[in-house]
Amino acid sequence: MNPVDSDFVTGGSSWSANDYQCMAEAIRLARCGVYSTDPNPRVGCLIVKNNTVVGRGYHIRAGEGHAEVNALREAGDEARGATAYVTLEPCSHFGRTPPCAQALIDAGLARVVSAMQDPNPSVAGRGLGMLKAAGISTEVGLLETQSRALNPGFIKRMETGKPFVRVKLAMSLDGRTAMSSGESQWITGAAARSDVQRLRACSSAIITGIESVLLDDPALTVRDVNLADENGFIRQPLRVVLDSHARLPRSASIIQQSGRTVQVVTQEEATASAGLECEQLVMPASAQGIDLPTLLNYLAKQEQCNEVLVETGARLAGAFIQAQLVDELVVYMAPTLLGSQARPLVDLPLSEMREQQRLILTDVRHLGEDVRLTYHFNDRINQSTQAGL
Amino acid sequence: MNPVDSDFVTGGSSWSANDYQCMAEAIRLARCGVYSTDPNPRVGCLIVKNNTVVGRGYHIRAGEGHAEVNALREAGDEARGATAYVTLEPCSHFGRTPPCAQALIDAGLARVVSAMQDPNPSVAGRGLGMLKAAGISTEVGLLETQSRALNPGFIKRMETGKPFVRVKLAMSLDGRTAMSSGESQWITGAAARSDVQRLRACSSAIITGIESVLLDDPALTVRDVNLADENGFIRQPLRVVLDSHARLPRSASIIQQSGRTVQVVTQEEATASAGLECEQLVMPASAQGIDLPTLLNYLAKQEQCNEVLVETGARLAGAFIQAQLVDELVVYMAPTLLGSQARPLVDLPLSEMREQQRLILTDVRHLGEDVRLTYHFNDRINQSTQAGL
Repeated sequence: MNPVDSDFVTGGSSWSANDYQCMAEAIRLARCGVYSTDPNPRVGCLIVKNNTVVGRGYHIRAGEGHAEVNALREAGDEARGATAYVTLEPCSHFGRTPPCAQALIDAGLARVVSAMQDPNPSVAGRGLGMLKAAGISTEVGLLETQSRALNPGFIKRMETGKPFVRVKLAMSLDGRTAMSSGESQWITGAAARSDVQRLRACSSAIITGIESVLLDDPALTVRDVNLADENGFIRQPLRVVLDSHARLPRSASIIQQSGRTVQVVTQEEATASAGLECEQLVMPASAQGIDLPTLLNYLAKQEQCNEVLVETGARLAGAFIQAQLVDELVVYMAPTLLGSQARPLVDLPLSEMREQQRLILTDVRHLGEDVRLTYHFNDRINQSTQAGL
Repeated sequence: MNPVDSDFVTGGSSWSANDYQCMAEAIRLARCGVYSTDPNPRVGCLIVKNNTVVGRGYHIRAGEGHAEVNALREAGDEARGATAYVTLEPCSHFGRTPPCAQALIDAGLARVVSAMQDPNPSVAGRGLGMLKAAGISTEVGLLETQSRALNPGFIKRMETGKPFVRVKLAMSLDGRTAMSSGESQWITGAAARSDVQRLRACSSAIITGIESVLLDDPALTVRDVNLADENGFIRQPLRVVLDSHARLPRSASIIQQSGRTVQVVTQEEATASAGLECEQLVMPASAQGIDLPTLLNYLAKQEQCNEVLVETGARLAGAFIQAQLVDELVVYMAPTLLGSQARPLVDLPLSEMREQQRLILTDVRHLGEDVRLTYHFNDRINQSTQAGL
């Protein structure tokens, strides 16, 4: 190791190859919590002394120890004089656990390198300030882009009060989802369906529309046992059914699953399906149905939703896209042609080329016989950049 | 080197790692002729003696030396007692050049390893038989799959009398090619357009429809100087315009390019555009226009077309697919949504899921901001397998 004893470095030019390796390992640790920390962020911490790793930790779930505390527990007395690499600025406040900045000070760390500041603008820098005031060498910004990618939803919620919205769609290679009659079946293969389980498992909530529920009767649960925690428990994202006219039947599969289901209705019809065995939420109506921005704000503020997955049909997916509420589009493309009369990928009534919605391709990969394509929306990315995302 | 002195090996179990490396190098040599050998196959030859490469050759263009002759020229006297690796069975007949099998015998080769037999069933094995009769150790089948991939068109033409048909399409991520008004523009980027130049350059002919010509006035030429030969010459594929009602205007860009353009008309209208400065071909009509199977047979037999590229709109592309005449589909997908009212990728009027056209994904790659997806058709591949392709 070759520690940099500068005061408060925010550029990357002073970091050694060892520093990069240690932070990369802290990021790998943080990923261990990808399916379980919700609504908290995924955070990893590596404690290194004399070129030797003496402590590893990551946040597992809300209410339990933060990454730093877990790493300090493993390090014990070895933490004195050591360097801690953390993927997020150590917290400075008493929440469900005492502040991690204080724990690092008490343990006698000599240096703390943080990948990024706390994304909550009202507390950003406080934890690092506490460390610095205690005489600890503090640096921030090492592998920041990679660390931000751990928590797109938590960071967006902290910075903007809105969740990160991911729309998942499955289509044929000619951009169709079903025949014109509505006839559909799994067009993607087992590997793609398994990947959707992973998308669900890292989401705080899954939004669907009543039309999809009435047509397909989906459970929208995480069922892959590989996504369970060390106790075999599978966290189920909140299931949100947009149902302005309160048509959700008592027999619907979605309300008979473990975890919570919320039926979202509009005020004037709120009582229509009273007695249904799921939660009900009254939201203002818009011209197209439920007012989507209000719903998303509610999910962020009242339900602490970080990443929201939209799994629905062409109409509702189109509404989210038209309202410019989507951050990421994940498309599973099957190697088949359904033809020119089949149903479109998204209902998006554009008539001129200048209205086209340009995206940015961020990932492509083979999944069995299918391809998964991931896109970010220009507008969202620009907005994110402006907001410091 | 560890030569295998068996008589006539067709399995791979006896080949050494050196044998594989030498044939792989012969395949790399063959690829040097990918844009210039038409209508001949791309062939490479490596001559090795005492672990040393003594001769390298590939076929450059029709009428000039075959790969073996070029490699023998470099090897000179060193060919005596050496091993030759050839990607295709050495020819046994006098064509525009003397038979290569005789040249190898005359040069005193001790061993000849061929990746595959001659795909023409009426002469397959004759060249190897000549070598064997002359006491040369002959083997066949090393890296056969990779060698067949060098010449999908030549092999299909030899084996079936039909060309290999590749359809190229460019679309938005929701499977659309233009707005409903017909408004279109380049939706894919420079890297994708440059890749299309490469597709054209390895084709014997490019087929388009009169509608595309009237709408876009394309040149359909190879213009990328990187695709020129060592003399700076760019071979232009034969341009074929399907124009049953003889509407091709004298001002069309496509007939003002270097290389040949053929206007394909139906008998009853053959005289309508007499005097046009391009060749004219009369073909039988089908319900949809030109009879496509007849045209393809003509191109294979009369024009010696190996790989044919179909660059056209949704209607004609759909007609080729419906008629099950397509071997490969190359889709360039731009990161944009054109919406549910925009024009479909291919006109394919299917109404039931069981009519869907399943394909096999063979390649995916990033091209700038776009993705290129390559598919083979099930039917064609099954047919090819049955035909030994």
